[in-house]
Amino acid sequence: MTLILALDFGGTKLAAATVHTGSKQWLRYERRLSPANANADTDLEIMRSVINSLLKGAKPEAIGVSFGGPVDATTGKVRLSHHVVGWENVPLRDLLEEEFGVPAYVDNDANVAALGEYRFGAGQGFDSLFYMTVSTGVGGGWILNGKPWRGAEGMAGEIGHMVVDPAGPVCLCGKRGCVERLASGPYMAQDVREVLRNVRAACPEDIPPRRASALGGAADLKHLACQGRQDKRGEVLRELVGDNLELVTGQIVSEAAAAGDNLAKEILYRASWALGVGIGNVANLINPQLFVLGGGVMKAGEDFWQVLRKVARETALPEVNFEIVSATLGDDAPLWGAVALAEDVLR
Amino acid sequence: MTLILALDFGGTKLAAATVHTGSKQWLRYERRLSPANANADTDLEIMRSVINSLLKGAKPEAIGVSFGGPVDATTGKVRLSHHVVGWENVPLRDLLEEEFGVPAYVDNDANVAALGEYRFGAGQGFDSLFYMTVSTGVGGGWILNGKPWRGAEGMAGEIGHMVVDPAGPVCLCGKRGCVERLASGPYMAQDVREVLRNVRAACPEDIPPRRASALGGAADLKHLACQGRQDKRGEVLRELVGDNLELVTGQIVSEAAAAGDNLAKEILYRASWALGVGIGNVANLINPQLFVLGGGVMKAGEDFWQVLRKVARETALPEVNFEIVSATLGDDAPLWGAVALAEDVLR
Repeated sequence: MTLILALDFGGTKLAAATVHTGSKQWLRYERRLSPANANADTDLEIMRSVINSLLKGAKPEAIGVSFGGPVDATTGKVRLSHHVVGWENVPLRDLLEEEFGVPAYVDNDANVAALGEYRFGAGQGFDSLFYMTVSTGVGGGWILNGKPWRGAEGMAGEIGHMVVDPAGPVCLCGKRGCVERLASGPYMAQDVREVLRNVRAACPEDIPPRRASALGGAADLKHLACQGRQDKRGEVLRELVGDNLELVTGQIVSEAAAAGDNLAKEILYRASWALGVGIGNVANLINPQLFVLGGGVMKAGEDFWQVLRKVARETALPEVNFEIVSATLGDDAPLWGAVALAEDVLR
Repeated sequence: MTLILALDFGGTKLAAATVHTGSKQWLRYERRLSPANANADTDLEIMRSVINSLLKGAKPEAIGVSFGGPVDATTGKVRLSHHVVGWENVPLRDLLEEEFGVPAYVDNDANVAALGEYRFGAGQGFDSLFYMTVSTGVGGGWILNGKPWRGAEGMAGEIGHMVVDPAGPVCLCGKRGCVERLASGPYMAQDVREVLRNVRAACPEDIPPRRASALGGAADLKHLACQGRQDKRGEVLRELVGDNLELVTGQIVSEAAAAGDNLAKEILYRASWALGVGIGNVANLINPQLFVLGGGVMKAGEDFWQVLRKVARETALPEVNFEIVSATLGDDAPLWGAVALAEDVLR
């Protein structure tokens, strides 16, 4: 039996686990939160202590690593973390190989999670798939011909910044109507807050008719706000956060929608529409067999999935077939993918 | 020296050529137009006669075939042609193998042209590229890891029906604002005709301001028309076709733009914008090294290329690098790709 060590450097949490090759059960498993003022050194220190408590002197044969940020997988060097400072150009693979004296492999979390779902989760038995995570951001990773496709410089899978509505709201990346701008939890919460604030502002009578497309630029949000004043949209949302709009999150939006709040439903509709267009476009371009969708936003309920599936089907050409399924490994997808990376190093 | 026979069943033309492996010069080459009432049988008959005149009794070692329509490359069976009747489920590979007694390989024209540019044209020395042809339609083909990527069912590469403007004009596929709807020659010509016809109709004074995005739904076309009445847009276009709007083609639009016609320029701007968004989205998703662009519309001039490059650069994330170059094999890309297919059969 070969012992594998799997590490997951997330933006806000650190996780590690050990497993015997061929097993689908963790031997040991530990997950910790990154401290608020974390940097690369504190993350590495915490991870070292987690590893020591897991291994207790045992030596793994290989180490697989998922990192929450861009990585050069060929050298195992981290480019940077968008959440934790000090990770610029850290040679994480080399550090681990020197410290533990065994081969290591490092890749970014979306690629690794895709590999995890492919080898151990919802993607088993498929040869080509696109894995997407929809939570605080929207990211993706490819399996083509049974192998990760990372792109020429490791940047493949960035569906979050595919433009699906050039007249949509502005994203942090500078473009309008990216998938992430419409479908990520924080952006949905932001848009809900803006509508609810606008309800208090004056709503002129001459609001232009809502655009036919079910999208949302600033004009649409204003329109939603004024509709809201008339039909009490957003009331459930307000109740859920005790009128403190800062407490609105993507999950609150889902809960409000489930409880029948029409504003929450419309914001979620727009998100599922954006994901559906993105998935349909990807299907036309790459024709994978399967889409595996994970992340907190995907827990938004059956209506959300139904719209997404319908729009994806309408966006893809009739001859382009695919399935869309839920990820099955949850937060452990990157860890299981790290196991697969380590197994491949040993082959 | 090994003799290769390359065949190209286009929608409106049939071409064949012979070449020795390793050579970049055709030994013999012939191109004929498909008759107006062509069907699969007449196409095959014409191709047989072309082949006989090329081979003159010599026997090739292998046959590579480009087909203008969806093909199951694993079985070499044509699914259908969008231009010529009777091609449904024709086992083209088996027909050729039986008739000539040598191995054959059949794939659709976009995949084969991508392979041609990769092996013999603008893509030489690159490992991952996306080839696009922009002419009467917009199609594409992939080379990933130095090999064609055809997708799970051979449908990969369909960038023509990526939605880039969900508020845009309706495409034959039923969706709005597909790349092909905005950038193909016939659709550009159609939109120009519509604007020019509207110039004759009454233009009310209270036209709403043009949308900020440089797109084009019906309202935009009407707006362009009324602008046209004021600043004589479309005048060059009219001159070029002697006021017979039916004669407007994509090429005429390009010529009018080059001669300074503002309506033609705007229609071309929209096309290059759509292609740029499509390319940027593809770059984010797959991160290929190179985009190779061919087809008649790509001859629209330097301004067209400049807008396309700028929009693609803005649409892709800053970390996503790529080059966009012109195809170099022209109409022969599918034939050269067919040579590559045949060479691979022999390996």
